[in-house]
Amino acid sequence: MSTLVEQLRNSEAHKSIFESAVRQNPLPVCAAFGATGQPQPVSFKNTDRVLGTKDSDGVRAKFPQTVAASGNVVLTSAGPSRATVQGKRVAVLFSGGPAAGGHNVVCGLKRVLGDNNTLFGVRAGPKGLLKGSLFEITDANVDFIINTGGFDFLGSDRTKIKSAEQFAQVRDTCIKHRLDAIVVIGGDDSNTNAAVLAESLYTGVKEDGSGVQVIGVPKTIDGDLQVGDLLAISFGFDTATRIYSEMVGNILQDTSSSLKYWHFVKLMGRSASHVALEVALQTKPAITLISEEVATRKMSLASIVDGIAQVIVDRSHKGMNYGVLLAPEGLIEFIPEMNAMIADLNDVLAHHAADFAALADDAKPGFVASKLRADNASLLASLPDYIVNMLLAERDSHGNLQVSLIPTEQLLIDMAKRRVKELDPAVPFAAHNHFLGYEGRCGAPTLFDAAYTYNLGLTAGSLILDGRTGYMATITDLTRGGTPQAIPLAGLLNIERRHGQDEFVIEKALVRMDSPAMQYFVSRRDEWARSDLFTSPGPRQFWGPTTHQLPISVALNSGADSLMFRIG
Amino acid sequence: MSTLVEQLRNSEAHKSIFESAVRQNPLPVCAAFGATGQPQPVSFKNTDRVLGTKDSDGVRAKFPQTVAASGNVVLTSAGPSRATVQGKRVAVLFSGGPAAGGHNVVCGLKRVLGDNNTLFGVRAGPKGLLKGSLFEITDANVDFIINTGGFDFLGSDRTKIKSAEQFAQVRDTCIKHRLDAIVVIGGDDSNTNAAVLAESLYTGVKEDGSGVQVIGVPKTIDGDLQVGDLLAISFGFDTATRIYSEMVGNILQDTSSSLKYWHFVKLMGRSASHVALEVALQTKPAITLISEEVATRKMSLASIVDGIAQVIVDRSHKGMNYGVLLAPEGLIEFIPEMNAMIADLNDVLAHHAADFAALADDAKPGFVASKLRADNASLLASLPDYIVNMLLAERDSHGNLQVSLIPTEQLLIDMAKRRVKELDPAVPFAAHNHFLGYEGRCGAPTLFDAAYTYNLGLTAGSLILDGRTGYMATITDLTRGGTPQAIPLAGLLNIERRHGQDEFVIEKALVRMDSPAMQYFVSRRDEWARSDLFTSPGPRQFWGPTTHQLPISVALNSGADSLMFRIG
Repeated sequence: MSTLVEQLRNSEAHKSIFESAVRQNPLPVCAAFGATGQPQPVSFKNTDRVLGTKDSDGVRAKFPQTVAASGNVVLTSAGPSRATVQGKRVAVLFSGGPAAGGHNVVCGLKRVLGDNNTLFGVRAGPKGLLKGSLFEITDANVDFIINTGGFDFLGSDRTKIKSAEQFAQVRDTCIKHRLDAIVVIGGDDSNTNAAVLAESLYTGVKEDGSGVQVIGVPKTIDGDLQVGDLLAISFGFDTATRIYSEMVGNILQDTSSSLKYWHFVKLMGRSASHVALEVALQTKPAITLISEEVATRKMSLASIVDGIAQVIVDRSHKGMNYGVLLAPEGLIEFIPEMNAMIADLNDVLAHHAADFAALADDAKPGFVASKLRADNASLLASLPDYIVNMLLAERDSHGNLQVSLIPTEQLLIDMAKRRVKELDPAVPFAAHNHFLGYEGRCGAPTLFDAAYTYNLGLTAGSLILDGRTGYMATITDLTRGGTPQAIPLAGLLNIERRHGQDEFVIEKALVRMDSPAMQYFVSRRDEWARSDLFTSPGPRQFWGPTTHQLPISVALNSGADSLMFRIG
Repeated sequence: MSTLVEQLRNSEAHKSIFESAVRQNPLPVCAAFGATGQPQPVSFKNTDRVLGTKDSDGVRAKFPQTVAASGNVVLTSAGPSRATVQGKRVAVLFSGGPAAGGHNVVCGLKRVLGDNNTLFGVRAGPKGLLKGSLFEITDANVDFIINTGGFDFLGSDRTKIKSAEQFAQVRDTCIKHRLDAIVVIGGDDSNTNAAVLAESLYTGVKEDGSGVQVIGVPKTIDGDLQVGDLLAISFGFDTATRIYSEMVGNILQDTSSSLKYWHFVKLMGRSASHVALEVALQTKPAITLISEEVATRKMSLASIVDGIAQVIVDRSHKGMNYGVLLAPEGLIEFIPEMNAMIADLNDVLAHHAADFAALADDAKPGFVASKLRADNASLLASLPDYIVNMLLAERDSHGNLQVSLIPTEQLLIDMAKRRVKELDPAVPFAAHNHFLGYEGRCGAPTLFDAAYTYNLGLTAGSLILDGRTGYMATITDLTRGGTPQAIPLAGLLNIERRHGQDEFVIEKALVRMDSPAMQYFVSRRDEWARSDLFTSPGPRQFWGPTTHQLPISVALNSGADSLMFRIG
């Protein structure tokens, strides 16, 4: 029997009691892959679904080879693969922000490629692909990373492969490592990149003139990579929202225990409010702001603040001097008047960069105000100083405002405080703010994300063994056992004019006002504001009776009759 | 079969899938209480341990009746109670900040008092006791709150019962509700208050001249209410530190996935660093600051910052431009030079309150600097403006600095950034900050906290049925089945001179430099700074193989040979 100190020493470096136990958790596989213990690759066949966007013609012109090969037709599993493929050399990389389950994609890939093929890990994201920083992944690696959170087995970065020089570097890496295929695990941008790479590497890479296959895997905690029933949700969303929901549930419980605080919680996710909506459905707080609704209803900042203050006052009159507000990280950019003002501001700063930089800090607001449209200048002047300073602060490399740096939650607190005082000076209002973001990206994947990603890995590997390129792996029928399918990436592409150039983009899936999840939220939120009906969803569980849950928004939007998922 | 929408409606108001399931989790009881299903009260007998402090004589003079009755002797279970006590009317209240497990104390009390006695809940803390805001607690209440987090069943506040008028109000409440006993669930201050109440209500409350019993229950997430092997830890500490540890473990995993950020995490707990130490032992981050060490080694702010910057630079030279730093909330007050400066500042502000208040904001720093001792003025001048503004901001009702408002983590980031640049300008340093506090107070209790608090409730109820007063309930032998015991509160009291008056206080248990937990931490921290040896302890589990864990610091300090606890 070892001493406690020895036990503690042995638990270092990813060997906590939890990590050691969770590695042993079995992973179910879709029936198509055969037995759980030794999943087998499937082959694919065309369905009768053809994908396309308004820009399909333009896309076809730029992606002639991959579109000709796929016809933009969705693939589905055709049962166990008959061919035994040997000697394939496959590289896998993480791209962009981490999300729970990435490691299991790698594990699924390794298992389905088996001993007859070789899987390489690309270190530190797309940059590692440019540099050729690859290493062979072993079975022991898989045993160690399975069911663990984060992207730390490989690392990640946000390099976008765009220039001719970068494409040449990728080609060099393919040649140097004699690669047959690349798997890109990433969000909408990374999957767009996968589509471009698939076309670019379609032929003429290897000595025999053949190309390198490229397969994408849909990742993002933001939940904005969705393709109807073909891709109900990207991986990582469930784990992140469950982590945030536990924290918000705990805070809600705290508000009605301490009886004296409001907590304003900003949730990660710049473009879409799926995270905020899901956390609201999980926890039922007094107020949740949805960016897409703000934009659709063209709400002004003043009207949003007034709505918040009204709830604060109404609750106080019923003896509830406490509550929780959820706000999506990107809220400010969805307020049309703020959006217009920020766009004007971005222009002014871009056009007067040198003059602006030469000014003393305290002269900057006046200078900017003099260049802005009058209504924008007056909106800017209505904001607290620290927000103005933020808005004038450094831009990212695209010249955009770094929205995540704006303390939206503090802005709302300060403006709500002012408005509450106007509505009823007797109402006490004390508030704390929170930003939940990084905490949710790298937790151990929920059983849903763990099973989903393992099967995505099996699907991606099967697509490679089946000779496919330019597809994104997906699992459909998440409540009915799961079906491995493949989405032709070019079929998702739109063309957007950015910085004077045509760029291909996969349109982000925003929260739709008419979606069942949003409609259910709208039907309940007034009650949640009026009375304490909140719930604590608790920490995600890996054993026991509460493990098998889909995100509520996903279950509602896909017409499921319960929250249970079933893979395998 | 109900529709999904119906299921969601039915889950509102504390009926999430998790909350419904966790209520069914069985709670083990110490062997002394008999069968788990229907625990029976125990009676108590003296041990041979007498408690005392340097001020025992002074305390005896102020607490003549309770000290005469207890002799400051520790009590232990004497087996099943023979007497059947009927008709006792007992009130229970939460005092101070919430902590996980409070509801289970109430449940334990209700179960052990049984149908022959009546348990009342006091609404909204000590203030509710003054107002006589009581209601009868039912078996249905117990079934609904068991194993759930927070104090929201009753609510809480921080009212301290001190004045003659307040004592008279408590007496009125006792008479009006014909109370026989009061159970105070709280931290060191609240248990001191329980000792004072026990003495004040010892006789002459009821018509027959008898008194009202008062029993304390040791709560605080800070972990600074400890009495050697008699009270290894207060309840709530385990749950809070496990919640923080999951978040920190997730963030650590994120740092080595994203490869570009430091995260500076401030942890709740103003007086002691038990929380920071425990989270460090759970997660093994690069840097953890321990307030007590800073005070013991008389470290300056500059030397702390230099140590941090050195680790950042060393890690960067090994390719690790990332890491995690943990800092206790009260750090600044433990830096002797800061402490001296803040004390000087508190004096200056107290003595020149009117003059100071009359000044314009921008004149305040200069005014204060002119009144401070020269070394204090120069330390103040070395701090960033926003910290100076904080230090000059509003005081609490005791005239003390509201330390929790000082952004210690941001101060350390800004000063470390400056120092890193001096040490090696080529080292990149980008950092995010976090404050983990409210998230950890009201989560569902870990199985340890759930079992511990239920048994504390059984013990507190048994003490009442056994006719005891002026004790704090405790459970000892936490790895060997558990023994119900009772600590004479007067035996813990010290006398401190505060605001020109003698006050009784239970000394806060700080982290001791020579404790096994601290020594183990010191033996490993250099390795943790040099290499990534971190672990993710994962979310706390309520089912499965990883549920039965003691806090690591508690296990080390009590000489346990594993992390397993065993109650029952």
